[in-house]
Amino acid sequence: MPTKIILDCDPGHDDAIALLLAHGNPDIDLVAVTTVMGNQTLDKVTRNALSVARVAGITGVPFAAGCARPLVRRIETAPSIHGESGLDGPVLPEPVIRLDPRHAVDLIIDTIMAHEPGEITLVPTGALTNIALAVRKEPRIAQRVREVVLMGGGYHVGNWSATAEFNIVIDPEAAHIVFNEKWPLTMIGLDLTHQALATPAVAARIAAVGTGPARFVGELLEFFAGTYKEAQGFDHPPVHDPCAVAYVIDPSVMAVRRTPLDVELTGTLTLGMTVADFRAPAPADCTTQVAVDLDHEKFWSLIVDALERIGDPE
Amino acid sequence: MPTKIILDCDPGHDDAIALLLAHGNPDIDLVAVTTVMGNQTLDKVTRNALSVARVAGITGVPFAAGCARPLVRRIETAPSIHGESGLDGPVLPEPVIRLDPRHAVDLIIDTIMAHEPGEITLVPTGALTNIALAVRKEPRIAQRVREVVLMGGGYHVGNWSATAEFNIVIDPEAAHIVFNEKWPLTMIGLDLTHQALATPAVAARIAAVGTGPARFVGELLEFFAGTYKEAQGFDHPPVHDPCAVAYVIDPSVMAVRRTPLDVELTGTLTLGMTVADFRAPAPADCTTQVAVDLDHEKFWSLIVDALERIGDPE
Amino acid sequence: MPTKIILDCDPGHDDAIALLLAHGNPDIDLVAVTTVMGNQTLDKVTRNALSVARVAGITGVPFAAGCARPLVRRIETAPSIHGESGLDGPVLPEPVIRLDPRHAVDLIIDTIMAHEPGEITLVPTGALTNIALAVRKEPRIAQRVREVVLMGGGYHVGNWSATAEFNIVIDPEAAHIVFNEKWPLTMIGLDLTHQALATPAVAARIAAVGTGPARFVGELLEFFAGTYKEAQGFDHPPVHDPCAVAYVIDPSVMAVRRTPLDVELTGTLTLGMTVADFRAPAPADCTTQVAVDLDHEKFWSLIVDALERIGDPE
Amino acid sequence: MPTKIILDCDPGHDDAIALLLAHGNPDIDLVAVTTVMGNQTLDKVTRNALSVARVAGITGVPFAAGCARPLVRRIETAPSIHGESGLDGPVLPEPVIRLDPRHAVDLIIDTIMAHEPGEITLVPTGALTNIALAVRKEPRIAQRVREVVLMGGGYHVGNWSATAEFNIVIDPEAAHIVFNEKWPLTMIGLDLTHQALATPAVAARIAAVGTGPARFVGELLEFFAGTYKEAQGFDHPPVHDPCAVAYVIDPSVMAVRRTPLDVELTGTLTLGMTVADFRAPAPADCTTQVAVDLDHEKFWSLIVDALERIGDPE
Repeated sequence: MPTKIILDCDPGHDDAIALLLAHGNPDIDLVAVTTVMGNQTLDKVTRNALSVARVAGITGVPFAAGCARPLVRRIETAPSIHGESGLDGPVLPEPVIRLDPRHAVDLIIDTIMAHEPGEITLVPTGALTNIALAVRKEPRIAQRVREVVLMGGGYHVGNWSATAEFNIVIDPEAAHIVFNEKWPLTMIGLDLTHQALATPAVAARIAAVGTGPARFVGELLEFFAGTYKEAQGFDHPPVHDPCAVAYVIDPSVMAVRRTPLDVELTGTLTLGMTVADFRAPAPADCTTQVAVDLDHEKFWSLIVDALERIGDPE
Repeated sequence: MPTKIILDCDPGHDDAIALLLAHGNPDIDLVAVTTVMGNQTLDKVTRNALSVARVAGITGVPFAAGCARPLVRRIETAPSIHGESGLDGPVLPEPVIRLDPRHAVDLIIDTIMAHEPGEITLVPTGALTNIALAVRKEPRIAQRVREVVLMGGGYHVGNWSATAEFNIVIDPEAAHIVFNEKWPLTMIGLDLTHQALATPAVAARIAAVGTGPARFVGELLEFFAGTYKEAQGFDHPPVHDPCAVAYVIDPSVMAVRRTPLDVELTGTLTLGMTVADFRAPAPADCTTQVAVDLDHEKFWSLIVDALERIGDPE
Repeated sequence: MPTKIILDCDPGHDDAIALLLAHGNPDIDLVAVTTVMGNQTLDKVTRNALSVARVAGITGVPFAAGCARPLVRRIETAPSIHGESGLDGPVLPEPVIRLDPRHAVDLIIDTIMAHEPGEITLVPTGALTNIALAVRKEPRIAQRVREVVLMGGGYHVGNWSATAEFNIVIDPEAAHIVFNEKWPLTMIGLDLTHQALATPAVAARIAAVGTGPARFVGELLEFFAGTYKEAQGFDHPPVHDPCAVAYVIDPSVMAVRRTPLDVELTGTLTLGMTVADFRAPAPADCTTQVAVDLDHEKFWSLIVDALERIGDPE
Repeated sequence: MPTKIILDCDPGHDDAIALLLAHGNPDIDLVAVTTVMGNQTLDKVTRNALSVARVAGITGVPFAAGCARPLVRRIETAPSIHGESGLDGPVLPEPVIRLDPRHAVDLIIDTIMAHEPGEITLVPTGALTNIALAVRKEPRIAQRVREVVLMGGGYHVGNWSATAEFNIVIDPEAAHIVFNEKWPLTMIGLDLTHQALATPAVAARIAAVGTGPARFVGELLEFFAGTYKEAQGFDHPPVHDPCAVAYVIDPSVMAVRRTPLDVELTGTLTLGMTVADFRAPAPADCTTQVAVDLDHEKFWSLIVDALERIGDPE
């Protein structure tokens, strides 16, 4: 049976690919998509999500907009990485589906509570603002989700500061809330995603698919390669968010390690750092783990496979 | 025309009196009551609110339960002040009205959005968790409320630490959110409420009203006097929360001062301190003010008057 | 018997007057003067101290230079208040005495250890860097000094931020060290010194003394009046540092209150705040107190009297 | 020409071995030894240093005691690792040399200033309290030392917390001072020293030396193995401090990486963390580096060689 997921995202180049992967893979049942400010403003990322839905041929899935700013901090976006639209590079088609009228927080709560316990997996690939608000508004979802598999953080790697990753540091209080709830939580951080590089060989495999969505992904990666080279010195861009979806599809795509995790809220140099404690084996009641090593080949095969299945929807 | 208010509270002895004042005073139109954990757990304070509604004869007003814990910090309650029930002292009658099915956050949002801009005044007398979540979920309420008049904080006085007041320090992140929104905000802090002492003369005036609700208030004050003497060394208990309602009824009941306000989130000794900046005249765009001096006689006359108007509802 | 003091200062207009008061008052025996960066760089304030020594006719007292920067933070000076020289206004005479070759930290330690226990009172009127280093290098001085009477901080008043005073906030770690040692400590903070205003009547009394040093003080106050008006909106300048010396001369010049005191090191809005805890009577082993109310007339009479006794030294 | 070093230490099992290595290796000229509280109280570690001097046959080198407590924090020692004496295991001989009367801070300053610029290397293997005080008292030493090679911290490894190492976290303000001075600084942190394991093969090589000092080291390692197994789960104990001396002897004993370094002072989870920024190549003016990979064989050969050269001094 496919795993039912809610994808909470801020497309964003890698979010777009995560959405395509979630839609194209037969082991995922995408039951809702929610958006949150981050890579760009809420309006932009929401519009981007709907455009990607059209590219991928996603219909019948509710999309809802969520929080337009972090809980406590001022809003910060990432145009240096994702451009002014949040999804610069390809031409974005006009959306054909319409937003669900509910707030993302309510769509998340309603969806989880309407399913059986253990049915829904939460897959956040942006700031954790929506998820934090949802669990504070309806605490019962913490017991009811199957698990949280998120892209964010890094136990030894930062990008927005020496120690912090963008998704976490732009709303560290929300991350603190999510990391400290009692649900099983897998952090797919930069330690892992900096292994998910879109090399020329990867780009060639994607190009070979030959469909519209594959061309769309190719254009996303081309733009992403440029900004990642310019802003962070990467030779090939790391494609973060699909790693979280890939782990839900097939945990063998990466090695993980169980460890206590928390989020630093007061550090001068370490605000938003995701702190793992590797000093001893994780205690028996530890429900958090981090991704450590990626099977690069298996990961990109999942992406290529999803694109092939999606074909040319229009 | 009476001022429409939403009372967001955690009864709590002084919250109960605030509720009676809001109901009994003809210049207040109580359009909703919401509850939040604080003086006791959410279940207890919600049950207390409904009991007080019966004592006061409140009907036709929606009551909704809100957040059961603070945003980021662990829950902390105040049994040393309010007892195990949160409203120790009098016998609490069985509630006769039922909770609104909505979450307090949604009742707050719906109520504000259903009224004209500038119609609704928010009167929080507990932790600011519900208000913070409401404005993050629906940012438009910040422009739409008339003002926020809250009991909490203290620019020079603390009670839960040397520098912090209970309502603020138990959820400082929520307070930071509320204090930094662009709505007009009046902080009725300990600087003011420690002047609102229930002296024997006050108790005598209340007893003289001779009704059931007045006896109820008398028993509340008697218990409150005991815990405030024991826990904080007060000769007469300060009755905090009705001060916020009193200010909405008649601003002349206290002197206020316009000043920038913010909430400390990282201090070791000052976590949750409400920081006012009195070094210079407040800038022209400053929308925050603090209460400074209470007209003790006028304040307690409002309470006595409300009790007289309420009479014996059952 | 006069009280032996070490004056640790950063002249600075009010430091200069403190030095004149300490020298001119018969109840003070000035045994050493040490300097620390603050109002200006170490070189400037040290040179200023020696110039003031000439103005006052101080000879036979060792002067030593101390720390050129705070313990942890970057150096910050106050040219907006004290001008480029640190003592702008009067013409500064060429010093005639020479610096002691020892570091201020060693002069402080040597002086305290060479006297009997309880003989030496430390009077810091600048950042507490020298004092902190001295007590860490030679912990026995904490038991050996009579008391520390310092100008700095403020329990309800700030000047360099909404909550912090200059001397403390420029080296909060040093202040934390000094405030947490077990010596008796009196904090003469802004709460008190903002009462020590040099009104026109005060200026007239000083002018009437008619000596060179009195004219020097008059010129200091004139410059100080200008910068305090411009930078902080004061009608008459507060003359902080002599208040500490005045308290040593005659404690009845001000009312004090015993209270626990500490220094905030991690606050975002409250870094360097001197936190007093007034919630309850001070515990029996509390060795700290704050100055509350100044006898303005008595204070300024001490200054005038000292100037009259100093006369015209050259 | 041998490198002149000042060893600032808190013996401590691995400090003792560092002292033996410094004394026994011909490329090191040990010009002074200073002590600081840490592994045990100042009295104990100072006595231990003198005892080790006798074991090693060190004469003619000044030993001076330094700071008995950290700058700001309360003192914390490590009896779980080093026992009640700070050097549990072997019988400690009665010292034969006497302490230099100077404070360690002054011995450090005097020694550096008495040598040519670039002559003295500082090798701290304990808390950085003495070094911090020295550079604040005499700022010119920052330009005058050759470099600072310290054991402490860890860019990805902690022991006293998930993110912090003992030497740094017990006096983080001192570490902040030392890490932010403009001297060349090499941090030999836990990332490196957890590679310096005293395996049974190592123990056998040391035993084979067959001298009194070698037996002394053997007994130290035996005790150390026990506490490291018990307290931190190590199969073989990491021998931290000699790594710093070894790097001074022969930098090829380890790979290093140039990177900006700083110390976290305000983190809740990260207090005392040594933060490296590996996101980009170190800037041209970066004067700090971290040790990354140890040549285990070469390192232990240095120890064995030093023991052989020391022979049986008495």
